[in-house]
This record gives sequence, structure tokens and C-alpha cells, in this order.
Amino acid sequence: MSRRNRAWVLAIRPQGPAEVSNFRLVESDVPPLPEGWVLVEVHYLSLDPYMRGRMATAKSYAPSQELGQVMVGGTLGAVIESRNPRYQPGDIVVGRGGWQLFHASDGSGLSKVDARVVPEPVFLGAVGMPGVTAWYGLHRIGKPRSGETFVVSAASGAVGSVAGQLAKLAGCRAVGIAGGPMKCEHVVKDLGFDACVDYKSDAFVEALRSATPDGIDILFENVGGRVFDAALERMNAFGRVAVCGLIAGYDGQEIPLRNVRSILTNRLLMQGFIVSEHMESWAEALPELGALVAQGRLKHHETIAQGLDSAPRAFLGLLRGENLGKQLVKLA
Amino acid sequence: MSRRNRAWVLAIRPQGPAEVSNFRLVESDVPPLPEGWVLVEVHYLSLDPYMRGRMATAKSYAPSQELGQVMVGGTLGAVIESRNPRYQPGDIVVGRGGWQLFHASDGSGLSKVDARVVPEPVFLGAVGMPGVTAWYGLHRIGKPRSGETFVVSAASGAVGSVAGQLAKLAGCRAVGIAGGPMKCEHVVKDLGFDACVDYKSDAFVEALRSATPDGIDILFENVGGRVFDAALERMNAFGRVAVCGLIAGYDGQEIPLRNVRSILTNRLLMQGFIVSEHMESWAEALPELGALVAQGRLKHHETIAQGLDSAPRAFLGLLRGENLGKQLVKLA
Repeated sequence: MSRRNRAWVLAIRPQGPAEVSNFRLVESDVPPLPEGWVLVEVHYLSLDPYMRGRMATAKSYAPSQELGQVMVGGTLGAVIESRNPRYQPGDIVVGRGGWQLFHASDGSGLSKVDARVVPEPVFLGAVGMPGVTAWYGLHRIGKPRSGETFVVSAASGAVGSVAGQLAKLAGCRAVGIAGGPMKCEHVVKDLGFDACVDYKSDAFVEALRSATPDGIDILFENVGGRVFDAALERMNAFGRVAVCGLIAGYDGQEIPLRNVRSILTNRLLMQGFIVSEHMESWAEALPELGALVAQGRLKHHETIAQGLDSAPRAFLGLLRGENLGKQLVKLA
Repeated sequence: MSRRNRAWVLAIRPQGPAEVSNFRLVESDVPPLPEGWVLVEVHYLSLDPYMRGRMATAKSYAPSQELGQVMVGGTLGAVIESRNPRYQPGDIVVGRGGWQLFHASDGSGLSKVDARVVPEPVFLGAVGMPGVTAWYGLHRIGKPRSGETFVVSAASGAVGSVAGQLAKLAGCRAVGIAGGPMKCEHVVKDLGFDACVDYKSDAFVEALRSATPDGIDILFENVGGRVFDAALERMNAFGRVAVCGLIAGYDGQEIPLRNVRSILTNRLLMQGFIVSEHMESWAEALPELGALVAQGRLKHHETIAQGLDSAPRAFLGLLRGENLGKQLVKLA
């Protein structure tokens, strides 16, 4: 029996903003499974900002994606064929299958998950890489104390939405920064942040000031540029800044920082990080995140595009901030 | 017997660059000494970039200096009168006497030093606050490992000169950044750095690249602006950046940072600090620095202006980088 696979490969590196034409859809037969391997049918594909970095050759924390290779990406799917005793058909596994319908694996990099309590898509969001990213930045860099003020940019996104809720659970005042009144309303009403400020508003800087009357103790930075600057302006002495992403500059835009003095005058600790380098934290964070979701104490929201064909457009939408919560593609 | 004191007070806050007219020289009688107090005749006055921050009202790590008050500053002098059993006339003490000939103290904030092995001026430099600053930034933030590359800006200054030498002692490749060929020659020939790059040269960026063939693991930043940017460009993964000063912006200049991405792509740890908040480190650092100077393993250099009248001009020269090593004023 031969299955047909379909996959998006990187066709051309972007010059300036990424475009649909950077990707090419290819078809091929799924080859026979070697001894010890499993075949996974992908249910959900995760789309994440870091993928934009991999499309370029510029130095980033992740190696460049090769031209002609399947776009990398986190996936959740079901084992449909197994020649590995540790996996049975029907097992639900998280892995890094990439932008394609099927992927084969020798089992390394796969994790079985229990999708009876936590829904499948959430393992790619609040109880997956974005959730652990939020957990790590907050707890390992931010080191929250009760009563402190926590601010996160891209607050309605997969990482920001979890970071702010975890900060609330740690006793902080949680303030989001997001683009537009709808996202801000979601962040406050649905996610329970204390406030959310619209960075697209003319009154952004003043609004951020009003929303942080006691200054900012912890900044979880996902955006960069003027959003980053406005938050740095509000930092308190001995504040902590977790630099998780700089999405404002991912298409090569200049994102200079003006409030550099704040690092010195406020004796800030600023740290860039990538969560895949801190695997020891996953084992601690994932059960905690899973329990919080199961108890209804950690809200999650997914924006789900339908079908593999929609992946490039959904990815470009993510880079433009068109999603709410975790951006996924449903494949099967 | 009445002694006449002379002191520089802050007369007018600077608008733009600091000027001699910001200061005013005042005379007064030294008042009778209260029980429990000592009178110190100042031998050396320390001039330091942080004083510029105190002249302004803008938020800084140090509180603003009040108008009409004696300019603050570290001093070394001799006890000439004592009504405190812990001090005898002739004791050499380091304190914060400010820009004046005499200062009285109840003993708090004074430290007796032994000027028989280490010369008096050095207690305001390599074996004083600047030395401890270098020690703290290198060891507590930089955490050097043998074989790593260390870069310090303002390398011929009081802090930078010590930081680079301590990095060498820790087994690092030490590269300085300084203004002009004379300073660079001093940094390499006299202080023993492996290389020094002239930031005033047109070829600065290329020269820094050549001087750091294995990238930069630890950056000790004293300057800011394009000097900071050039160094950030060369940072290695998991590099550490001790932000000690941003002298390029002390007169209110914009000093935007362009290579913000380096924080993320290289997962940098960046930390601003002020050494007076880490008094626990002084007890560890000072004996180590004193021993290194006594053994001739830590070189020191002072630029010494003569007489209290010269203090404002010497201070403005310091801000323009006209000094080599520690800038002092000799009063008596």
C-alpha cells in the first residue's frame, strides 16, 4: 500500500517580507517504514514566529532551513504504523514533523501525550513549546514575587497569553500589550489580565504608563522596537527582562532601542533565551501547565487554519499578528 | 585655631554638555569638631563619570546632587584632628569627602588604609571603587572561563584598565577599545592587553573583528552607542554583557542600540550594575586587588591634576576622555 505525502518546502528565501511564493508544495510516496521506525499522520501543525528566522541565512539562534527541504515545525499526530515496540498505532505523539501530512521517526524527538483531558491542539500551545517558553521566561528569568508588575508584549499570542496568566497565578499584576482593541479585550476579559494596552493606539505610551502605576518589575519581550522602548521606560530598579522574541524585526526591519540607559540606571537584568536549550525545564513545566489547563485555571485559545494548503497564508498572517492565541493548521 | 575650607558646589545644572560655569568655589571656616568626629585633610580627590549623572535631575542610579551643596566624590586623606577613639591623627583614610580641602566625619563611611605598600592615589583607583567595579563586573556578571575573549570599552580608563588585566589573569584573551593610538598603545604595551582597537578610527569595526577572531564571550561596556553596537555584533552564544557605564550619552546624547537582535540570537545575559550596591564584594575584591598591585601583577596609572582649583576642568576632561587611567586631583 502506498500513501501519498504532501509537504511544503522552502523554495526561495525572502527578500524583505516573507511571501507565499517562498514556499512550494511537493508530493511524494511515503517510503516503506524501516525497522524500529513509526509513521505518524499529522493532525495539527504548529506555526511559530521562529520559523521566519530559519527562512533567512542571517545568523539566528536556529540554523537556517535548507532550500528544498520540508519546512520545520512542531506537530501533533497519531501513530498509524509502527515497527517500534514503544509505539502502538493510535498513540498520540508530539514531534517535529514539519509542514507535511505524514512523517516517519525512529522515536527520537517524539513524546506520547494523553489527549483525554487536554485537547490535542493544546499540546502545541499552552501545554507545549509556547507554554514552556512562557513558563521559562517568567520563572527562570523573571523570578516573580507577589505584588510585582509583569508586562508582556504580544499578549494575545501563544506565549504571551500563557505568560501573563502564569504571572497572575504568581501574584503579579499582569499587563498585556497587544495590537488593536479586540485583542486587548480578549486579553483582559477572557484571559484575566489586569489591563491590556493597544500598541497601535496614538495614546500607547500614556496608556502603558497608566496601566503600570507602580512601574514594571518584569518585562517579557516578544516584539522589540518602540514597544520594547516604551516598556523599558517604565522599568523599576532591579527589573528583569526576558527577551523571547523580536517579531517587529523579523522581516529585516531596523528595530533600534533608544532607552538603553534604563539598563544601567535601573540595573536591569536582560536575558535572551530559546526554550529548546533548557530541556530540564520542560519536565517541570509541562505537568504544571497540563494540570492548570485541566483545572480550568489556564485559559487557552487557538486559531486553526484548515488543511495543509493553508499553511503559508496562515504563517504570513501570524507574522502580521492576525491570529489570536496559538496559530495551528489542522491537517487531519 | 580656625582653618579655612574651600569647596566646589554645584551652582547650575548643565543644559547639554557640562561646563566650568556649572560649579562655584566657596570658602568657609572649618567648624569646631563635635565629640566622636574626626577631621580629614584631603590628599586626593577622585573624579568619576557617575558624577555627571548626579549633576542632572534625570532619573539615574544615583540621586541628584542638590544645588549649592558640595560636589560629592571619593577622597583619600589624613586624619588631622580626632575626637573619635578609633582614629588617630596621621591615619590615612578613604571616604566620600567631596570636592573640598577638609571634611569632617563621625567615622561612618571612612576606611583606614595602609599606604606603605600601595601608594595613596591607588586607593581611589585600582584598589578602590574603580577596581572593585572592574572586579564585580568581570567576576559576578562576566564569569570568565579560561580561553574566552573579553572586551572592554574605555579600556585605558580607571575601570577598563583593571577589568582587562583581571580578565587576562583569569585566562581570557583581553581586547580593549579606546580613543586614539596613544591610549591603545598604553593598553597593549603598558597594561598587557592582547589587543586594543581605536574607536575613533574609520576602520574601527573591521579592526574589532580582526582583534576578536573567536568572537566575544564577555563584554564590559562603559561607553554605549556605536561602540556598544560594534561589540554586540561580535558576541558569541551565551555571552555576558556587564553594563557599567554609558558615557557616550552622559550629556544627554541619543545613544540608540541597533544590534538588539544579538541579545536574542546569541541568548545574551546583559546586566547593569552599580558597585556600591554590592558591598559584600568589596571585602573580597579589595585584598585581592591590593595584593596584585603590591606584587606588580596589576598595573595602575593615574592622571593627577594639581590643586582644588583644577577640579572642574579635570572633570570635564575626564568626560571628554582626556585622562589616562584614574583621574585624580591632588589637594595636599
